[in-house]
Amino acid sequence: MSKRYKITIINGPNLNMLGQRDNSVYGSQTLEQINDGLKKEFAEVDFTFLQSNIEGEIVGFIQKADCGALIINAGAYSHYSIAIADALEIVKTPKIEVHLSNIYAREEFRRTSVISPKVSGSICGFGSDSYFLAVTECVRLLSKPPRP
Amino acid sequence: MSKRYKITIINGPNLNMLGQRDNSVYGSQTLEQINDGLKKEFAEVDFTFLQSNIEGEIVGFIQKADCGALIINAGAYSHYSIAIADALEIVKTPKIEVHLSNIYAREEFRRTSVISPKVSGSICGFGSDSYFLAVTECVRLLSKPPRP
Amino acid sequence: MSKRYKITIINGPNLNMLGQRDNSVYGSQTLEQINDGLKKEFAEVDFTFLQSNIEGEIVGFIQKADCGALIINAGAYSHYSIAIADALEIVKTPKIEVHLSNIYAREEFRRTSVISPKVSGSICGFGSDSYFLAVTECVRLLSKPPRP
Amino acid sequence: MSKRYKITIINGPNLNMLGQRDNSVYGSQTLEQINDGLKKEFAEVDFTFLQSNIEGEIVGFIQKADCGALIINAGAYSHYSIAIADALEIVKTPKIEVHLSNIYAREEFRRTSVISPKVSGSICGFGSDSYFLAVTECVRLLSKPPRP
Amino acid sequence: MSKRYKITIINGPNLNMLGQRDNSVYGSQTLEQINDGLKKEFAEVDFTFLQSNIEGEIVGFIQKADCGALIINAGAYSHYSIAIADALEIVKTPKIEVHLSNIYAREEFRRTSVISPKVSGSICGFGSDSYFLAVTECVRLLSKPPRP
Amino acid sequence: MSKRYKITIINGPNLNMLGQRDNSVYGSQTLEQINDGLKKEFAEVDFTFLQSNIEGEIVGFIQKADCGALIINAGAYSHYSIAIADALEIVKTPKIEVHLSNIYAREEFRRTSVISPKVSGSICGFGSDSYFLAVTECVRLLSKPPRP
Amino acid sequence: MSKRYKITIINGPNLNMLGQRDNSVYGSQTLEQINDGLKKEFAEVDFTFLQSNIEGEIVGFIQKADCGALIINAGAYSHYSIAIADALEIVKTPKIEVHLSNIYAREEFRRTSVISPKVSGSICGFGSDSYFLAVTECVRLLSKPPRP
Amino acid sequence: MSKRYKITIINGPNLNMLGQRDNSVYGSQTLEQINDGLKKEFAEVDFTFLQSNIEGEIVGFIQKADCGALIINAGAYSHYSIAIADALEIVKTPKIEVHLSNIYAREEFRRTSVISPKVSGSICGFGSDSYFLAVTECVRLLSKPPRP
Amino acid sequence: MSKRYKITIINGPNLNMLGQRDNSVYGSQTLEQINDGLKKEFAEVDFTFLQSNIEGEIVGFIQKADCGALIINAGAYSHYSIAIADALEIVKTPKIEVHLSNIYAREEFRRTSVISPKVSGSICGFGSDSYFLAVTECVRLLSKPPRP
Amino acid sequence: MSKRYKITIINGPNLNMLGQRDNSVYGSQTLEQINDGLKKEFAEVDFTFLQSNIEGEIVGFIQKADCGALIINAGAYSHYSIAIADALEIVKTPKIEVHLSNIYAREEFRRTSVISPKVSGSICGFGSDSYFLAVTECVRLLSKPPRP
Amino acid sequence: MSKRYKITIINGPNLNMLGQRDNSVYGSQTLEQINDGLKKEFAEVDFTFLQSNIEGEIVGFIQKADCGALIINAGAYSHYSIAIADALEIVKTPKIEVHLSNIYAREEFRRTSVISPKVSGSICGFGSDSYFLAVTECVRLLSKPPRP
Amino acid sequence: MSKRYKITIINGPNLNMLGQRDNSVYGSQTLEQINDGLKKEFAEVDFTFLQSNIEGEIVGFIQKADCGALIINAGAYSHYSIAIADALEIVKTPKIEVHLSNIYAREEFRRTSVISPKVSGSICGFGSDSYFLAVTECVRLLSKPPRP
Repeated sequence: MSKRYKITIINGPNLNMLGQRDNSVYGSQTLEQINDGLKKEFAEVDFTFLQSNIEGEIVGFIQKADCGALIINAGAYSHYSIAIADALEIVKTPKIEVHLSNIYAREEFRRTSVISPKVSGSICGFGSDSYFLAVTECVRLLSKPPRP
Repeated sequence: MSKRYKITIINGPNLNMLGQRDNSVYGSQTLEQINDGLKKEFAEVDFTFLQSNIEGEIVGFIQKADCGALIINAGAYSHYSIAIADALEIVKTPKIEVHLSNIYAREEFRRTSVISPKVSGSICGFGSDSYFLAVTECVRLLSKPPRP
Repeated sequence: MSKRYKITIINGPNLNMLGQRDNSVYGSQTLEQINDGLKKEFAEVDFTFLQSNIEGEIVGFIQKADCGALIINAGAYSHYSIAIADALEIVKTPKIEVHLSNIYAREEFRRTSVISPKVSGSICGFGSDSYFLAVTECVRLLSKPPRP
Repeated sequence: MSKRYKITIINGPNLNMLGQRDNSVYGSQTLEQINDGLKKEFAEVDFTFLQSNIEGEIVGFIQKADCGALIINAGAYSHYSIAIADALEIVKTPKIEVHLSNIYAREEFRRTSVISPKVSGSICGFGSDSYFLAVTECVRLLSKPPRP
Repeated sequence: MSKRYKITIINGPNLNMLGQRDNSVYGSQTLEQINDGLKKEFAEVDFTFLQSNIEGEIVGFIQKADCGALIINAGAYSHYSIAIADALEIVKTPKIEVHLSNIYAREEFRRTSVISPKVSGSICGFGSDSYFLAVTECVRLLSKPPRP
Repeated sequence: MSKRYKITIINGPNLNMLGQRDNSVYGSQTLEQINDGLKKEFAEVDFTFLQSNIEGEIVGFIQKADCGALIINAGAYSHYSIAIADALEIVKTPKIEVHLSNIYAREEFRRTSVISPKVSGSICGFGSDSYFLAVTECVRLLSKPPRP
Repeated sequence: MSKRYKITIINGPNLNMLGQRDNSVYGSQTLEQINDGLKKEFAEVDFTFLQSNIEGEIVGFIQKADCGALIINAGAYSHYSIAIADALEIVKTPKIEVHLSNIYAREEFRRTSVISPKVSGSICGFGSDSYFLAVTECVRLLSKPPRP
Repeated sequence: MSKRYKITIINGPNLNMLGQRDNSVYGSQTLEQINDGLKKEFAEVDFTFLQSNIEGEIVGFIQKADCGALIINAGAYSHYSIAIADALEIVKTPKIEVHLSNIYAREEFRRTSVISPKVSGSICGFGSDSYFLAVTECVRLLSKPPRP
Repeated sequence: MSKRYKITIINGPNLNMLGQRDNSVYGSQTLEQINDGLKKEFAEVDFTFLQSNIEGEIVGFIQKADCGALIINAGAYSHYSIAIADALEIVKTPKIEVHLSNIYAREEFRRTSVISPKVSGSICGFGSDSYFLAVTECVRLLSKPPRP
Repeated sequence: MSKRYKITIINGPNLNMLGQRDNSVYGSQTLEQINDGLKKEFAEVDFTFLQSNIEGEIVGFIQKADCGALIINAGAYSHYSIAIADALEIVKTPKIEVHLSNIYAREEFRRTSVISPKVSGSICGFGSDSYFLAVTECVRLLSKPPRP
Repeated sequence: MSKRYKITIINGPNLNMLGQRDNSVYGSQTLEQINDGLKKEFAEVDFTFLQSNIEGEIVGFIQKADCGALIINAGAYSHYSIAIADALEIVKTPKIEVHLSNIYAREEFRRTSVISPKVSGSICGFGSDSYFLAVTECVRLLSKPPRP
Repeated sequence: MSKRYKITIINGPNLNMLGQRDNSVYGSQTLEQINDGLKKEFAEVDFTFLQSNIEGEIVGFIQKADCGALIINAGAYSHYSIAIADALEIVKTPKIEVHLSNIYAREEFRRTSVISPKVSGSICGFGSDSYFLAVTECVRLLSKPPRP
């Protein structure tokens, strides 16, 4: 099947540690396993997977993203990185924020995401399904006329 | 196709006015049109659609919901109804919060949802697609073994 | 005299108890007496008087109001009902908030009205005269060209 | 034994679900079982038991209560319903606030009751005994001269 | 027609600039045009019109006001002048606060008026009609027995 | 009648002044009169009555309390003594907080009790009856199996 | 008796109205009567009495004060005038803040004085005696060596 | 000279250390030296000097004070002891709060005194002169008719 | 050299005291010396220098300013004068806020300027050079086409 | 071995209950066992061990401490006793704050220590080792020249 | 012309995107164009231009800056990077903060700069002219004796 | 002596500048000198010393730390890096936070450490001794059975 849609997925700090973090919160899959699952599920998508623990590198990933839609799990930076929020503001393609856990049911400081106001929409709390839903929505937006 | 999954979708105050509300925020579809779209898209789902402007009626809808999964857009009550949050806490099935608009990019008072900590996950900002994604996730949860 | 102007007046919780509430704050008139006074004073107006203790019913009153101008005393709901505020936002006709007492000279929690930002203007502190002034303004707006 | 004291007990949202809610917090009795226990214990009292999930109906219950003393467990509405607080302010008979759980040992938002300043006194944390103690005090107040 | 009622109208800082300020907020009339309109509309009233940009002069205007009723638009000082609030507290005649714009629908800092607790009542959001309604109420209060 | 239940009642600062404090808030009885009333009413209880103005002495009373149930009116210390709250946390027997006045209807700083989260339950606002109800509940807890 | 000490006393807004303000708070004396009393009591002092309702004039009084010690009752400006605080900061002579009423026992907004950090000390709550005590202290400071 | 006036002066925690504390803030005199100075200056006064580091003992001093007027420097307890504030509230004689230093020009937490609202007036910032002025005012109040 | 640019410089309260204020903060130059320096440096500019301690006079200066560009150091009023902010909002020419000191490195209350949102830009912390830079920018704006 | 270093260790409220408090937080050792351990480990130190539940007694311990270094675990008073903080401020010898538990990982109110700013340094979270480390540091400071 | 002054200009995150960001806020010039303009305008200056999206790299730029004066636009990091503020604190040369936009007229979170207290002064709101003014001031400081 | 214990010490931003930073706060030693001191003092420890100014690199250091115990001085990042806190949460070995200075006696923003809740314990205020004590505790924990 031809790769018709280019989607970039950016993961932030400590998400490279999935599988070793608290399973009751983050599930037992590694990031690689999640990515493989997505590639299998969405054969028509040409994925670029990026991960960094460094805030400014994530800013750079966003600036250079050459894609039809952008998905980002900024991890802990979601809660204070105005630099990432500023970078997202420049992006014109659809952009979706995802979280594995329901951040609103956790510590107080995790209940605010400074990047939420800069994305098209947010999906959180469904474990790795959060990524699946985000890609589903990206494909839909890239393949159909906008809804009324 | 047989109706294998029972899903209840509850809409709160003023969502019966969709189509007449600010289109740039809420889209131009009526609630009925959204519901029809869902029925057409998910033939295998047996939907129950409920709407009320009255906080306590929504509490009652939740208490009496006889379904495999629950989707709720509590509208303005999302921001202050502890009664609805308490009712959701009792529900054992998967429960998903949806919003048409990106509530985190709007007025300050809309950026907090008191029901978010009581649901499995939240999806917001994708217009009527928010419902679509929520049903997709419900079907997935009801049809597959839990993810690792 | 022909009824040329249709004005709906909505009263919220506990306003059906006027006459029994603290007279020094709310005056000694019942709501019915106030309404009768308005009908006598403004013979040219076709009034619809509505009252409910239930937040969601007031939302419904606003959604279905078929009038040239709307006057609302949302009582205690003024201080926290975003649902009523959302309903008022949809209304296109002139809409005026009234209060019998000077809410700004009372308890801290009464000094904020979440519906104030959604109405054309507010009148408070003049007892039943608050309604009188609101109707005066409605008639003026419905009968004259807009002011420069 | 003749019914000498008329006492109204009003229960708010989700209290109709007792028995199905978290037992470690709310005990395992249903509301009906609690009410039956009270009737058995206090043969001399003519009870009126009311329950509603709807804020405005509770306002109405209070306005129309025809009794010597009023007991109210406003549930989640305790934390934000100024409408119920306003209704209680009009009541002249003794009025007691009860809670099954110790609300001060729970989530932050449950530690404030906006109706507490409007009642004679509050009793919380004793499970169904909270109601028992409230009725004991009501009977005492209705049967004896006021304490010095 | 004889001048039966003495009413003083005090306008605060920048209100002398009406006509040059943002028309969408303040209308296009000058303060002089508004005053002329009031004089024409209320022939029975003996008006004193005062304006100053200086907080302390407004305090002086209030202290020396020799009138049956006082109307004040303290402009920006409404939001922080305790000195003006203190002066108003001494005044025994009816005193009404007016604003051209709906201050509750503007910037956060304009949503609090420190003089509101010191006046009989407030009227805001009706453009120059705010003054008209205030004078209407003053005449009513000066010409009729107090309402029950 | 044999003394079957050992109950310790601890009173905090200024409660030794009852009778001389504001009667409209605290009633006209002295602490001794309240204690005598309790002894007469509950013949089966072996009471220990303790009072101190010194925070650390109250901590000591709690640490050394040899009783089946503990009742405490910590007076002003209720609002800030984490030391007393810590001491109460160690106590394993039933422990009840009482207040003569309805602390939630008084000054802002009296509306929070730091010891409330550490007791079984709280009773406030019933004057000396608050103690009576607390002892009633203690006896009940000591004499019956736990409620379901 | 020769005038050995030069003391300037500055009074702020609405203090020219003493005698007409709420007597239970401010006493029944006029400002002139207070000043006369001071002149009689302290024959050795050469007083300059200044009063203004205008913040900037008070700033000017302070800048130009030619005296051995300065006493100021800035009235309402005490609570927000950083301009007056800045002017006081430049003054090198002893400077004392006085208030007729106990500002700490009044409305919340009166409990903070932005000029308190800029004066040598504050005296409040003794009615006109506040001025008397302030002059006593000034004379003491001007006539004796500094205390150890 | 006969001792005509009974005045009790209560000093709180760490004031027994005067002379060893930071001289630039508290002066170099010991508490004993200050007391001796007062006795010499006010021969007609029968002083009782009390000091304690223990909050509850200070409460006891206030409860048992047998005097015509009370002066208190509650030291650090000024900022949080509601127990002392409650004790002061019961006192009917004149009561004056003093501080050696200008507490409003120090750390943030020292700028609020919870006992200020319970005293007749406050004097702070004049070093040991603060006591002198307080005694002056007490004598004045005890020897003269109340001011108008 | 012909005076081609008209620039008005407005200085607020206590700036007439420069030279006598704390030199480490404000430098040792008087306001006159600063003004003379500007006139010498910018021969092509026709300056109008205004200073007042009175908030309302500064409002008036702004309203009547007849110039190509406006520079304002509102001193202490920068931190709370909404009246000055409102006046600046009406001005259409370039307008620059200056401060001698780095207000962000001083007391908490000086770190917010309510006029900053109403000017084109702000320059602070360079002593008298702040004025120099502001004039440099004004001349640039008045003499060149706008930057891309 | 000769006792070369005098160290005073002060323990505050409820620390006399160690062994009976929550072991998961405080460990299972009694205070006596900890003290014995320290004496055995540090033979060269002459310890004075003090404990009190009474805030003012702890103030007294600090004032009278005759030692080369002071170690304090003020328990619950750490979070609000400005009186203890003031007493510590006077102490010139090294002074170290210790806590058994990691107070920053517990309830919100335990995360602030008002005495931390007054000590040389703090050690928390190591159980009884916290005392061991504090004594190690004291010995080091008393036996060596200060570090560069 | 010889390069007499060494000036380092550091730009933070997303400033490498100038030209692609919102032109109404940031202008249409790229960072390279701004830098070229500065080099042309200030021939006597030896510039070092640095840019990074990585917070820690900016810390490193500051630590290693070998220059006579430092200019920094820390972009989004201005609002939360204490690490950059700490690095600036170590720098002894003149250091100036610049912003293209008037940050005080934008979103709430942009109105505070944690680095402002650590620089000599700030210039904001003049687009690329902000850099021009900053260099002008640097040259002035490096070429002239300090101002009085 | 064999290296029996592996300990990693991570230092954050600007700690590479020790020796050049404010000596009164940070001491005069360089980081290298501190590290050398530790190696000499603890011959049995196999140290890994890491330093970075980049937040994400520190996250990486923690993720890859192969050691028996971890010591971290996160410098300025202590106050806001949730990413570092998240990384520490994954670490299972003992982990100790150190600070050279007493962060609780410095600026307000330095009094909160977001990483404190994620470590075993904290040591601050002892200059380079803070590291010494941390290593002492690590060795103790690695060499002994856990304390009771």
